[in-house]
Amino acid sequence: MIPSAGGNSRRAARCRSERESLALLTDYYQLTMMAGYWKTGRKDLDACFDYTFRELPPHNGFAIFAGLEQLLDLVDELRFDDQDLEYLASLGTFEPAFLDYLKDFRLTCSIQAVPEGTVVFPHEPLLQVEGPLIEAQLLETAVLNTLNYQTLIATKAARLRLACGDDDELAEFGLRRAHGPDGGLSGSRAAYIGGADCTSNVLAGKVFGIPVQGTHAHSWVMSFETELEAFRTYAANSEQPVLLVDTYDTLTSGLPNAVTVFKELRAAGRRVRPAIRLDSGDLARLSKAAHKMFAEAGFNDPLIVASNELDEDLIADLKRQGAPINAWGVGTHLITSSDYPALGGVYKLVAVRGSEGEWVSRIKLSSNPAKMTDPGRKRLVRYYDGTGRPLADIMRLADEAPDVIDPGQPAKPVPFAERHDLTFLRAVWDATRCEPLLLPVARAGKRIGEGPSLKSIRARARAQVASLPEELRRLRNPEIYAVGLSPDLAAEKVRLVRQAPGVLASGPTAT
Amino acid sequence: MIPSAGGNSRRAARCRSERESLALLTDYYQLTMMAGYWKTGRKDLDACFDYTFRELPPHNGFAIFAGLEQLLDLVDELRFDDQDLEYLASLGTFEPAFLDYLKDFRLTCSIQAVPEGTVVFPHEPLLQVEGPLIEAQLLETAVLNTLNYQTLIATKAARLRLACGDDDELAEFGLRRAHGPDGGLSGSRAAYIGGADCTSNVLAGKVFGIPVQGTHAHSWVMSFETELEAFRTYAANSEQPVLLVDTYDTLTSGLPNAVTVFKELRAAGRRVRPAIRLDSGDLARLSKAAHKMFAEAGFNDPLIVASNELDEDLIADLKRQGAPINAWGVGTHLITSSDYPALGGVYKLVAVRGSEGEWVSRIKLSSNPAKMTDPGRKRLVRYYDGTGRPLADIMRLADEAPDVIDPGQPAKPVPFAERHDLTFLRAVWDATRCEPLLLPVARAGKRIGEGPSLKSIRARARAQVASLPEELRRLRNPEIYAVGLSPDLAAEKVRLVRQAPGVLASGPTAT
Repeated sequence: MIPSAGGNSRRAARCRSERESLALLTDYYQLTMMAGYWKTGRKDLDACFDYTFRELPPHNGFAIFAGLEQLLDLVDELRFDDQDLEYLASLGTFEPAFLDYLKDFRLTCSIQAVPEGTVVFPHEPLLQVEGPLIEAQLLETAVLNTLNYQTLIATKAARLRLACGDDDELAEFGLRRAHGPDGGLSGSRAAYIGGADCTSNVLAGKVFGIPVQGTHAHSWVMSFETELEAFRTYAANSEQPVLLVDTYDTLTSGLPNAVTVFKELRAAGRRVRPAIRLDSGDLARLSKAAHKMFAEAGFNDPLIVASNELDEDLIADLKRQGAPINAWGVGTHLITSSDYPALGGVYKLVAVRGSEGEWVSRIKLSSNPAKMTDPGRKRLVRYYDGTGRPLADIMRLADEAPDVIDPGQPAKPVPFAERHDLTFLRAVWDATRCEPLLLPVARAGKRIGEGPSLKSIRARARAQVASLPEELRRLRNPEIYAVGLSPDLAAEKVRLVRQAPGVLASGPTAT
Repeated sequence: MIPSAGGNSRRAARCRSERESLALLTDYYQLTMMAGYWKTGRKDLDACFDYTFRELPPHNGFAIFAGLEQLLDLVDELRFDDQDLEYLASLGTFEPAFLDYLKDFRLTCSIQAVPEGTVVFPHEPLLQVEGPLIEAQLLETAVLNTLNYQTLIATKAARLRLACGDDDELAEFGLRRAHGPDGGLSGSRAAYIGGADCTSNVLAGKVFGIPVQGTHAHSWVMSFETELEAFRTYAANSEQPVLLVDTYDTLTSGLPNAVTVFKELRAAGRRVRPAIRLDSGDLARLSKAAHKMFAEAGFNDPLIVASNELDEDLIADLKRQGAPINAWGVGTHLITSSDYPALGGVYKLVAVRGSEGEWVSRIKLSSNPAKMTDPGRKRLVRYYDGTGRPLADIMRLADEAPDVIDPGQPAKPVPFAERHDLTFLRAVWDATRCEPLLLPVARAGKRIGEGPSLKSIRARARAQVASLPEELRRLRNPEIYAVGLSPDLAAEKVRLVRQAPGVLASGPTAT
């Protein structure tokens, strides 16, 4: 509803970063470990790593998975170029023969992932890399850098959408407060996936085809002798002007001048919707005053855009107070997820292949229980009721029996819930359909096919959120969605905990 | 002290982003305003814009200015390339003649700025763009995107350095939680300026010459049959191994195995410092236990690296409790400045040139008093006492008398303090030296000379922080540094407030 600048341009949704060697976009220890694996003949040991996060942002009932396309771009183009190798040689810590090995290094691993735009929950394996240890290790930092940030921002955008409702316009205006150019660029993409309608970031429009929108700045007004002249000139040069009314004084100057200009446009026969932006002051009081002034001038449906430190709580509260705002420009709090600016996603080894070719599950314990991993190569399965509502997600070992449900029959698997939760058991019992969520996205180091369009990813996210029970869509204290382990996986986990080093020596559960 | 991988490589400290057209790294409204200025014959109106921020991150006594080099890179290379213009044409909102104008668009403006690494305070003009309105407008988003984030992270790093002291190693480990690739890259640069010794980000090492460091991950340990074998292999392949001891159980497995390995290395005649990393559990208790175990094995000076959700408060508290940790790996809370993830810097029009060629000051009021601007083209002057300690900063109009202080004489200017603060007046009276802080960095759209090296910027920041009075270096409730307006500037501001639209109609100060 804010003047839009086309969103239909079809462009490959590629990240800027793909055009360069980003092989070194990694932590130094990945390279020293790679050198160690190479040196000790372990580089081709097959391994499996999971990407997962441990907790949702505060007050969230779900998250939206995002960032996969940018990761796959990196995977597709991962090479150590001459400059990279020259730099690594300059460090003096790597053997020349190892650098020669890196020169011809190409990925051969396979990747499975949840589709972008999927509603996801803590502890779930959202991406799984399987292949030579040395490759899977190198990918860790890129996996975390791309998925953590975009999942965080898509989740925040979904939350803002819940607050403003489906009818209002939600614009992402965060570039100026984003963490560097790519912070802005990939943040705009994630915000669009999660539910923003458009962005102010023109580069994101160019690269991803996201609709770009905007109004004008205070400087436009200040560059003229009078506010009225500034408004008249802006309106004469804009198809659908939105006038920023708080440069001097909203009630006594900005709003009266804006009403004057829209009256003049009406008198001149121009069909434009009266439209203003409020960027300071009390947004409830000022939007009501604006609505009243426009009504008195015979304008019954003004567009009132609000900006200024908006977040989902403030939007919900303004709507509760009846503020007639119908478009929201959200910057800082969206692009940085300011109340929770980092998703704590991790990437952990869950299995290695033994000498006989068999997979051996691995677990990480540590003295912090939240950091214990779920071991083994896994599937992730979502169970639905007859109306398409998700009931529970279960992690299963990859080699367990498949999770087919007879059409028309209730689900037969009665899994062992990690939390022994009755709701969870009942949910799975009630399921009439189940769906594997981890799907192949790369094989032999190359992405499989073309990824979905950004629009279809966004549509998936919107549909997934809409399918959730209301209890999960609350902005405060939502229900906790049921995520559990299959009986086989749970037993495997207990077995590994009991036999882990140190546990027999000190643990009360030793048998 | 964590094994370092060269930091002496001399490379041009250029941002990756310079290699591409980033002309569209801007908000859409900048382009629509540019089109408006162009259409109405106002594009060459001379204007002056200030970059300033309104408040410090919580509990901070100062900030460290950073990000200027990346901005100047953008300025130097700003062009609309064919792809940019094709995209803008596809939006259908810009006249072809305007796009033709953009095709040949080159910056001609001048820029003054505070040097990177300078200690700065709220409301100060840190960067000033002077030139055609249409150019200065376009630069807004790039100014804010580069300066807001890097200044924020340099400031956070300085705060972490205050907490850990000058002798400890401070490593930035944030890439996996950074906001996209550039969030990591420019964040690593800013963290280094502010006081980090090194980064885990190899790309930042390559691009900026920052020392890169790291230990190993849990996956290294988990890829072996036993932790002891993993440690032995790592130690055999590393010049200065740092062993991560919390994969299974720190006290009963990780630490005893680490001590065993370092004893074996000693017996084999290898001269390495025993070194471990703790990544979970109670860092005070575990570091003390580790220190004791090493002492019992005859190792008196172990390197104990801590990581895991560290911030300046936790570091200060661990040191207060006597934790024998001597190296700190800080990730999330540094690279995102998690308690305050966006610096609220703004870029505001402060003057336009009138028809006679004279500069006319402009002010922005708005109903939010914190958003009122300080008008006019300005100088920023810092006053020092005889020991080199900063006493106060004063903003002056550019055409005021210069601010020379006779050597050996106390300062003569008795400025009008915006806050009428006695401490402030006394500070300026006591000054024996003053220094202009805004210096020319670009002329006719081109940077002036080569910028300083990253090392010298970092050294400047460290020296500036060291020169501050202790009261400003407190981690809680620091003194507020005195920043004021000169009498002429203060009078100009009052005059503009009184004559602003809307104020005469409603303001109590009308005369």
